[in-house]
Amino acid sequence: MTPVSARTTGTVRVVGTGLLGTSIGLGLSAIDVDVVLDDVSPSTLALAVDYGAGRRTGEADAPALVVVAVPPDVVAAVVAAELARYPDAFVTDVASVKAGPLSALEAVGAATERYVGSHPMAGRERSGPIAARADLFLGRPWVITPHAGSTAGQSAILEGLALDLGAIPVRLPADRHDDAVAIVSHAPQLVSSLLAARLVDAPDHATDLAGQGLRDTTRIAGSDPALWVQILSANAARVLPVLSDLRDDLDAVLEALADPAAPGAQRALADVLAAGNDGVARIPGKHGVDLRTTTLTVLIDDRPGQLARLLTEIGELGVNLEDMRLEHSPGAPIGIVEVSVLPEAAGGLEADLDRRGWRVA
Amino acid sequence: MTPVSARTTGTVRVVGTGLLGTSIGLGLSAIDVDVVLDDVSPSTLALAVDYGAGRRTGEADAPALVVVAVPPDVVAAVVAAELARYPDAFVTDVASVKAGPLSALEAVGAATERYVGSHPMAGRERSGPIAARADLFLGRPWVITPHAGSTAGQSAILEGLALDLGAIPVRLPADRHDDAVAIVSHAPQLVSSLLAARLVDAPDHATDLAGQGLRDTTRIAGSDPALWVQILSANAARVLPVLSDLRDDLDAVLEALADPAAPGAQRALADVLAAGNDGVARIPGKHGVDLRTTTLTVLIDDRPGQLARLLTEIGELGVNLEDMRLEHSPGAPIGIVEVSVLPEAAGGLEADLDRRGWRVA
Repeated sequence: MTPVSARTTGTVRVVGTGLLGTSIGLGLSAIDVDVVLDDVSPSTLALAVDYGAGRRTGEADAPALVVVAVPPDVVAAVVAAELARYPDAFVTDVASVKAGPLSALEAVGAATERYVGSHPMAGRERSGPIAARADLFLGRPWVITPHAGSTAGQSAILEGLALDLGAIPVRLPADRHDDAVAIVSHAPQLVSSLLAARLVDAPDHATDLAGQGLRDTTRIAGSDPALWVQILSANAARVLPVLSDLRDDLDAVLEALADPAAPGAQRALADVLAAGNDGVARIPGKHGVDLRTTTLTVLIDDRPGQLARLLTEIGELGVNLEDMRLEHSPGAPIGIVEVSVLPEAAGGLEADLDRRGWRVA
Repeated sequence: MTPVSARTTGTVRVVGTGLLGTSIGLGLSAIDVDVVLDDVSPSTLALAVDYGAGRRTGEADAPALVVVAVPPDVVAAVVAAELARYPDAFVTDVASVKAGPLSALEAVGAATERYVGSHPMAGRERSGPIAARADLFLGRPWVITPHAGSTAGQSAILEGLALDLGAIPVRLPADRHDDAVAIVSHAPQLVSSLLAARLVDAPDHATDLAGQGLRDTTRIAGSDPALWVQILSANAARVLPVLSDLRDDLDAVLEALADPAAPGAQRALADVLAAGNDGVARIPGKHGVDLRTTTLTVLIDDRPGQLARLLTEIGELGVNLEDMRLEHSPGAPIGIVEVSVLPEAAGGLEADLDRRGWRVA
């Protein structure tokens, strides 16, 4: 990360030097923000300091911003303690669940007018300071959860922090954040664990055949159980309905598998698989199919200038490319170009390219 | 793929020019094997020929090997037809399920003494000839399923085919293959689809927070439903028990989520998450934790020669490295080295390195 001028001003105190806290310290230190660290574990703190995430907090230090990066079950207590210890500081936390801590703070009468929760959507299966990376948050959403008692200025401070760490700030009320992560993070964690658990007693000749599909679907099953028990317990009421719906669909699948020749069985399996296609299509970006564009596949000869010529002609046709992807197989004399355009432009473009002699598959 | 001398001799006929068939044709053509193609769909065949996967089959062609790469529901019929059409040819198929086709062939009295099934463990969410790649099989297991009526020489021919395409040949009886893929491929496909289906009605503010974990767990949910209905139906009896066990674990999770404060609820969640850890650890290679080695983490200064010095000293200590991984965070002044050694050597190495002044985390 090349040093840039930081939006974050003053001393930042990071409480809890695990994966997230140490990564935040590394990222801020890299752009010359003054970072002071603290952790209940002396060895974890020492490791984070050695790692370059910041210095130990001194008595004289008066942080402008305190970032609490501790396990979910103690986050409210630690935030309350920090608010009390530093009466002039603005405090945030980075816990994966947001509604609970806020109401807990309000319940104990903490100075929530100096607190706004946040949640960087970044992590690794590995935990602790040695897994930390200054670029952990690069390009990841960083959710900021304003509340009735907080100000736009406070949210702006956290947006600056997120931007300083290369993250993309997103404002969401705590409730909506918790609903969202139940679907995109907490349910997937449990499902991945449930699937990986099937491998425990699998014969070696089975696990030896593991391919990328199995590796991808079970990767996050390597996550820290202790941390996840806390996260899942804190958001249980929101994760429950998601997995209950999944269980209902699973029951339909089991019935179909029990007698695949029965009337409707094939249809039941097809429905689940098709719903999976539709679900993946909802994920923005390259990894999912983007419903906002239509993709045409054009075969081009593997000769210099062919791709340039295609793109030039698409430009001449007045069509704006939303996305473009070239795939070339080592063994093939031709290349595959996928051009994504707005749906309304696709039909005309296909006809025009065909008329100009391009092979549109 | 740089041309090498092929193990596969004579003309190879590929029946079915979808993703697998066309990829096989591309890979073999790249090493100058004579490949002839056929497909029930003229346009699919034309595309595969244009793509460079081989030439159309001529009347005079007498293939030594026929590779049937058609959908599971017609594989037995097509293999039987090829055995009858080419009395001197050896025939294989690449379908994802192996026991069914073999018994179907035996039932119709096909010349199974000239047939051995196989299954390259490779694929993509995308299908058809335009998704084909000559290197699709590189480093992937290619299962060969000998049977009572087949010879070692026939399995050797298929091993040559697999090696020619960069795959790793594995011999397994059809039944054991089908048991294995139920666990490592078919159940993961359904689970990924069931999870992705949760996104269909998710609000945009939820899908916008999608991270790598969700993308990985749902990637294969983008697979072709029509193909997978056939695969799952053909192996339903073996997939059913795997998913039934998963459903039982899921029920325990749902009960725990319904009342996370209840006695035993936290334990129930922890058990599933821990079992997930254990399951991932069963997957060989980098993507899982390899139980056969113990990994030590050593912090080194970010100075030239530090890593070399560490590895030299480990050598001096007479310890053999099973694996080594260097991780360096852009923001950190030090690097993290993970050295994997045999469990029995780990304790002594940690003590020795510590004595020599290395920082072993």
